[in-house]
Amino acid sequence: MSAQKDDVVLRRATDASWLPLALKHFDEVLIDHAHCEKKAAANALSLLQAYPEVKGLPAQMARLAREESAHLAKVLQIMEKRGLVLGKDLGDPYAQGLQKVMRHPSHHRRLDRFLVAGIIESRSHERLQLLADGLTDAPLKRFYEELAKSEDGHQRLFLRLAREVAQEDEVQGRLGELLEVEAKLIETLPVRVAIH
Amino acid sequence: MSAQKDDVVLRRATDASWLPLALKHFDEVLIDHAHCEKKAAANALSLLQAYPEVKGLPAQMARLAREESAHLAKVLQIMEKRGLVLGKDLGDPYAQGLQKVMRHPSHHRRLDRFLVAGIIESRSHERLQLLADGLTDAPLKRFYEELAKSEDGHQRLFLRLAREVAQEDEVQGRLGELLEVEAKLIETLPVRVAIH
Repeated sequence: MSAQKDDVVLRRATDASWLPLALKHFDEVLIDHAHCEKKAAANALSLLQAYPEVKGLPAQMARLAREESAHLAKVLQIMEKRGLVLGKDLGDPYAQGLQKVMRHPSHHRRLDRFLVAGIIESRSHERLQLLADGLTDAPLKRFYEELAKSEDGHQRLFLRLAREVAQEDEVQGRLGELLEVEAKLIETLPVRVAIH
Repeated sequence: MSAQKDDVVLRRATDASWLPLALKHFDEVLIDHAHCEKKAAANALSLLQAYPEVKGLPAQMARLAREESAHLAKVLQIMEKRGLVLGKDLGDPYAQGLQKVMRHPSHHRRLDRFLVAGIIESRSHERLQLLADGLTDAPLKRFYEELAKSEDGHQRLFLRLAREVAQEDEVQGRLGELLEVEAKLIETLPVRVAIH
């Protein structure tokens, strides 16, 4: 099985300026990371609420929500040790950009929600891996290594759900379109001290 | 410390007709229970999104979301063994009745959300305990015993959060009003094959 078929393969790598900036302002990245885990858990529950009819989805989304909530709890613990507080979620132009192109008719919307979730997971995994490679503090490095590993399966999970609700041609066609949008967002949005 | 001060003490017990009905239609109760765990996890994340400024709230809601998502995953597992599927959430007139009386100004709303969450947790705990006592299937009985035990702390957790944002007089006054509304709902709504 080639990576192209079973993975959400991003079309543009994160800019080289991101990692040094993220490491320099790591406290801000941690706070954004907590918000990302929160949104990932909430999105899993929201998909479970919206699409309980999709085969395998309820059990998979329940486990995903548990896992992302556990990551969130752990990130908040690290933040607390560093004297950081969460604060309001100011929103994320990257995720908003992807949400804007999701189609509205219900069949299309369902497919788009799975594919966009898969793309965001894939981008998150790339950045968590960059942090894991770049961090020098041993416990933090280990935490991000474990996280990158456990998050890696999520993009594939969403691709499998997409295939439950659409034929392979439609899945790959729409995934290609959304990956183009994502690459454009990565190219045009200013580099932020944030996971996305 | 008396129970009256540190617990959300319900003013009306569940009708005696509920347990036999719930045991007779246990499959339906399981499905409703899955939806309740999903809503409890989603509500924890929603509170975290809305009120990150409340002391202790982010960490507590992250852990709660993890716990409720784990319960949800377990209930879905039991459902799968029984050949049950989740289906759409048709809503819950009990929870809707409580939501309807929540006040809108932001300070009041925050307090009301904590207190209503505490009341729903307290009622859920009562019903889970009734199921634990009434079930005869040993693994199911054990599962509901464990669940009732772990859910017991949640009402107290929400009462503590209420005290972070309002004086004791205001907390007790408003809690009393909401408990009256809840008792009225329990008295007037038809007995349903559901956790609430």
